Amino acid sequence: MKATADGQPSVKGTALMTVLEQINKPDDIKKLPEDQLNVLAQEIREYLLQSVSQTGGHLASNLGIVEITIALHRYLNLPEDKLVFDVGHQSYVHKILTGRKQEMNTLRQLDGISGFPDPNESDCDAFVAGHASTALSVALGFAHARDIKGTDEKIVALIGDGSLTGGMCLEALNNASSLNSNLIIVLNDNERSISENVGGLSNYLGKIRSSARYNNAKRVVQKWLAKIPLVGEPLIQFIRTVKESLKRLFISGMYFEDLGITYIGPIDGHDIHQISEAIESASKFDAPVLIHCLTKKGKGYTPAMAHPAQYHGVDPFDVETGAPLKESCGTSFTSVFSDKIMELAEKDERIVAVTAAMPYGTGLYDFKKQYPDRFFDVGIAEEHAITFAGALAASGLKPVVAIYSTFLQRGFDQLLNDICMQKLPVVFAVDRAGLVGNDGKTHQGIFDESFLALMPNLTVMSPKNGLELQDMLELAFVCEGPVVIRYPRGKVDPALDEFRQPVVMNENEIMLEGHDICIMATGAMVSQAYKACLILKEEGYNPTLVNIRFVHDVDTDLVRRLSESHKTFVMAEEAVYTGSYTQRLQAALNDVRIEAVTLPDGFIEHGTIVQLRERYHLTAQDIVTLSKKSS
Amino acid sequence: MKATADGQPSVKGTALMTVLEQINKPDDIKKLPEDQLNVLAQEIREYLLQSVSQTGGHLASNLGIVEITIALHRYLNLPEDKLVFDVGHQSYVHKILTGRKQEMNTLRQLDGISGFPDPNESDCDAFVAGHASTALSVALGFAHARDIKGTDEKIVALIGDGSLTGGMCLEALNNASSLNSNLIIVLNDNERSISENVGGLSNYLGKIRSSARYNNAKRVVQKWLAKIPLVGEPLIQFIRTVKESLKRLFISGMYFEDLGITYIGPIDGHDIHQISEAIESASKFDAPVLIHCLTKKGKGYTPAMAHPAQYHGVDPFDVETGAPLKESCGTSFTSVFSDKIMELAEKDERIVAVTAAMPYGTGLYDFKKQYPDRFFDVGIAEEHAITFAGALAASGLKPVVAIYSTFLQRGFDQLLNDICMQKLPVVFAVDRAGLVGNDGKTHQGIFDESFLALMPNLTVMSPKNGLELQDMLELAFVCEGPVVIRYPRGKVDPALDEFRQPVVMNENEIMLEGHDICIMATGAMVSQAYKACLILKEEGYNPTLVNIRFVHDVDTDLVRRLSESHKTFVMAEEAVYTGSYTQRLQAALNDVRIEAVTLPDGFIEHGTIVQLRERYHLTAQDIVTLSKKSS
Repeated sequence: MKATADGQPSVKGTALMTVLEQINKPDDIKKLPEDQLNVLAQEIREYLLQSVSQTGGHLASNLGIVEITIALHRYLNLPEDKLVFDVGHQSYVHKILTGRKQEMNTLRQLDGISGFPDPNESDCDAFVAGHASTALSVALGFAHARDIKGTDEKIVALIGDGSLTGGMCLEALNNASSLNSNLIIVLNDNERSISENVGGLSNYLGKIRSSARYNNAKRVVQKWLAKIPLVGEPLIQFIRTVKESLKRLFISGMYFEDLGITYIGPIDGHDIHQISEAIESASKFDAPVLIHCLTKKGKGYTPAMAHPAQYHGVDPFDVETGAPLKESCGTSFTSVFSDKIMELAEKDERIVAVTAAMPYGTGLYDFKKQYPDRFFDVGIAEEHAITFAGALAASGLKPVVAIYSTFLQRGFDQLLNDICMQKLPVVFAVDRAGLVGNDGKTHQGIFDESFLALMPNLTVMSPKNGLELQDMLELAFVCEGPVVIRYPRGKVDPALDEFRQPVVMNENEIMLEGHDICIMATGAMVSQAYKACLILKEEGYNPTLVNIRFVHDVDTDLVRRLSESHKTFVMAEEAVYTGSYTQRLQAALNDVRIEAVTLPDGFIEHGTIVQLRERYHLTAQDIVTLSKKSS
Repeated sequence: MKATADGQPSVKGTALMTVLEQINKPDDIKKLPEDQLNVLAQEIREYLLQSVSQTGGHLASNLGIVEITIALHRYLNLPEDKLVFDVGHQSYVHKILTGRKQEMNTLRQLDGISGFPDPNESDCDAFVAGHASTALSVALGFAHARDIKGTDEKIVALIGDGSLTGGMCLEALNNASSLNSNLIIVLNDNERSISENVGGLSNYLGKIRSSARYNNAKRVVQKWLAKIPLVGEPLIQFIRTVKESLKRLFISGMYFEDLGITYIGPIDGHDIHQISEAIESASKFDAPVLIHCLTKKGKGYTPAMAHPAQYHGVDPFDVETGAPLKESCGTSFTSVFSDKIMELAEKDERIVAVTAAMPYGTGLYDFKKQYPDRFFDVGIAEEHAITFAGALAASGLKPVVAIYSTFLQRGFDQLLNDICMQKLPVVFAVDRAGLVGNDGKTHQGIFDESFLALMPNLTVMSPKNGLELQDMLELAFVCEGPVVIRYPRGKVDPALDEFRQPVVMNENEIMLEGHDICIMATGAMVSQAYKACLILKEEGYNPTLVNIRFVHDVDTDLVRRLSESHKTFVMAEEAVYTGSYTQRLQAALNDVRIEAVTLPDGFIEHGTIVQLRERYHLTAQDIVTLSKKSS
């Protein structure tokens, strides 16, 4: 561990963890004397660094929440009480404290523990959390259920300031005041979601943070007010007015108080004693209480504090230098999008970009820097992002919404009712479509192909490689209606670069023309299908390979034509079967048998994409085997 | 028109509308002298009453927004400027003022004008609006686009206080402060969405409303403050603090100010002059400004003011008495649900109910009255509603979420990730599944069958009549995972009551056993299919009729078995084809040909359900014709 900005000592790997050693089950932390808690915090940070640097995972947010988690575990009795996470990638410390310390080396690995809370993994995990802004809804449900049942468990929701930009969290905040029993909401305010936070509420929290300097003035005024005698009706009225009014200034967080939520803070989220005192105070209210904790994302590890967005989610890295262990080679789909959108935006100033809190992940960071006036980061607010983009399009601009497949689920209704119904020319750059790997079941992009197929007036394209993504982006911006381009996580396959027929609306690409087996594939699976064809050729077959570029409407004409010369058809895609291209094609052609290489209908766990393809029979060899069996 | 609470004269039908007669296109209202505007308002109310009492439609909200609409139309130049509606059922006055007065008698009728704004209908309608809480996102899009393009059109968003409970609107509010140019947000605060509003923000608005009485005290204090000389540094600091603090009290709407939105109000939303002055002031800011208007839903019509929820959406009625013109006969699916849930709740106190602002429409009103502690109206907040219910279920309660099919779209991600992933036993009572009729394309429940089929671990049932809905509810509450029961708008068909085989998980019902034509149908279409069978029998056929009760997984076993004795299969459902049971069945059985009776893939316009079934070939006769053609 490198020396840190706040002067903590440099330790590396070998340190004896004398306090953490004593923590093996949920209750153990309560047996520690208070003066060992800071040592525990330090040891947890070292443990996190060691394990996450090996497994990869979410680092910065977990380093920032060590003290809060310790204080909460001192307060709560798990699993009887409920600790509800929001997003949940900051649950590593919680996992370490609830009997999963030894399993941290399996984090996010196939059949290892999840990078998110999961009740299937531990009864100390109260609820699944993978998408943002759900915790307060969950906690309110737990609290009202407790009151109806007449039990007395404690309930705490742990939310980030980023989650406050999500509509769902705001819906729940609006509902909190109806609760007449205790609920503690810990706001972990690190001034960031993944990137910097945006919006009025974030500015407001900023004002609270900077208000500490007024404390002295407040005290003076308070004393003075206390001395004023209450005499004479008009004067009493006046003084009351002044007092009430001053209360608004003295109590930070009136935004929350206006919503009927008691506010405590801001406090230092790295001071265990201060947090514990705040929890103690908060626990006395028969109402929801919000504790505003200020923390530093990446706390205790210099590289993460300096670049919290970069250390939000990391691959395995060298603790000493912060550098990745494996040099990333190849070009990702995301970076192809990133470069191409810059090229297009330079040529056409009507192109504007919208992201829901992910300028880095979606590849819009250069765009943000180059065209700040044409760039909109709206916070974790997918619903707003989509309809907002619709209005930009209705005004004659050419918006691109860059979003992950799994988060597009949040905007289902807006995409359908606001975009598709009006045929508005919004381009959706849908990243992480298909298997995403280690983030697991809450993040797989395996449903979008099916739910997008339902949307009238939508064009959905799926590129096989980087060049095709570029060509599809060119086409998308001259389309008259809405377009989704869905592309996978990971690197483009340069072996496919020799196939680059012009991308023409609703025309799919015949990459290899054969006459016995016809293999169709879309997106990332084209690469697997191509490998399958090479194997089949070696074995004496003469396969046809079709790259399905347009996945919204099935290409029955093409398949009918090919069925004259082919007897075996296999279709491969990284999507659930129900609603898939395969299923829709099978329905359309009941005289041609199409073999399906898809994911099963279900949630897919974490593991590398390669491992998951193997487990679910989506490899080149699986395609070969099925092709031969069916021919 | 009956004499009203505020003493307006009783007029009926025959009144000369001398002012309204002069309003035939958008600009006409600007030519009127100011002193005729109140007469215009009165005449518009009469016109609304006359036309809506004949066509049916949304009455109370339009009566409440007459003056605001007049003032906005005096300010705006349409269609160049943009008036953005939220939900949009309160756009009738706007339609009357923008050249559609003569067409009001076709409102919501097949091929007539829509009950919602629609850019396809008029270029004065800036954006589609049917679902709540979208207006501010749209208006922000328009405003940022204006600034990028360097144009200068005016933009106004008209939102209701109910819409403020929706997460999407809150996401947009959080983003408003980034706008550095003018945007006027008119908050039409009638203290209701359809029913009374709920939540902290609603309470907060209530406090503002009641704060008028402090105005005198405020003036006294302000004068006093102005007189204090600023001398001496500590005193200056102190006075500044007091002043800043008092500003918080003097300026109502600090909730909005905290978010960076300038607040004006509250003002009388029925005083055209006052509204116009507020608009004039608001238009001077290079920033978003919210004008808080207090209005009375149903204003000017006594029955609607007394029962605004009842007059929210109405069938044709007698203006004099307020009574419906046609006595509604028969029992609706909604009322069957309403009665049955009361019966179940009495027997099992773990049953709790959740609605997103629709206790009336969804049939939960009795539940709300009888079990207030087990009832949760969370506002127009579908995302929160679903996950909140998930936590209630995770706590051992048995929640039912009663919701319309079209609004369930808002909770796609929550249903998938929070409910289905954890197999939580939440019962979703999904009303208005299938064609809904006159509300038209933003409200048809024609997508749920397809998008629900994607959700792993979900049971989806579709009852053919009221008895089956009762039986399915019984079953739903003993299931261990999540269940959707989707049922149509309208009346149950008593002709089907003789068919009541026990509802057994994943078993469909053979209602008639024949041997030539097999007709399968689900939900409302079972009634049509039954009629088709009666016709076919008369014509000498011996049809089999299968009631598809479980629509999530296709019943291939049953169809395979029946295919031994039947050569023709027809499947009928009120859903888009893509993702339908029909399509999934066709994909599963490529050796059995299934003829499809579904809606086309697209948005379905307004009209009565009967008219729409005729237009899209979903009648009993259509089933007969197709059956005979295919056999």
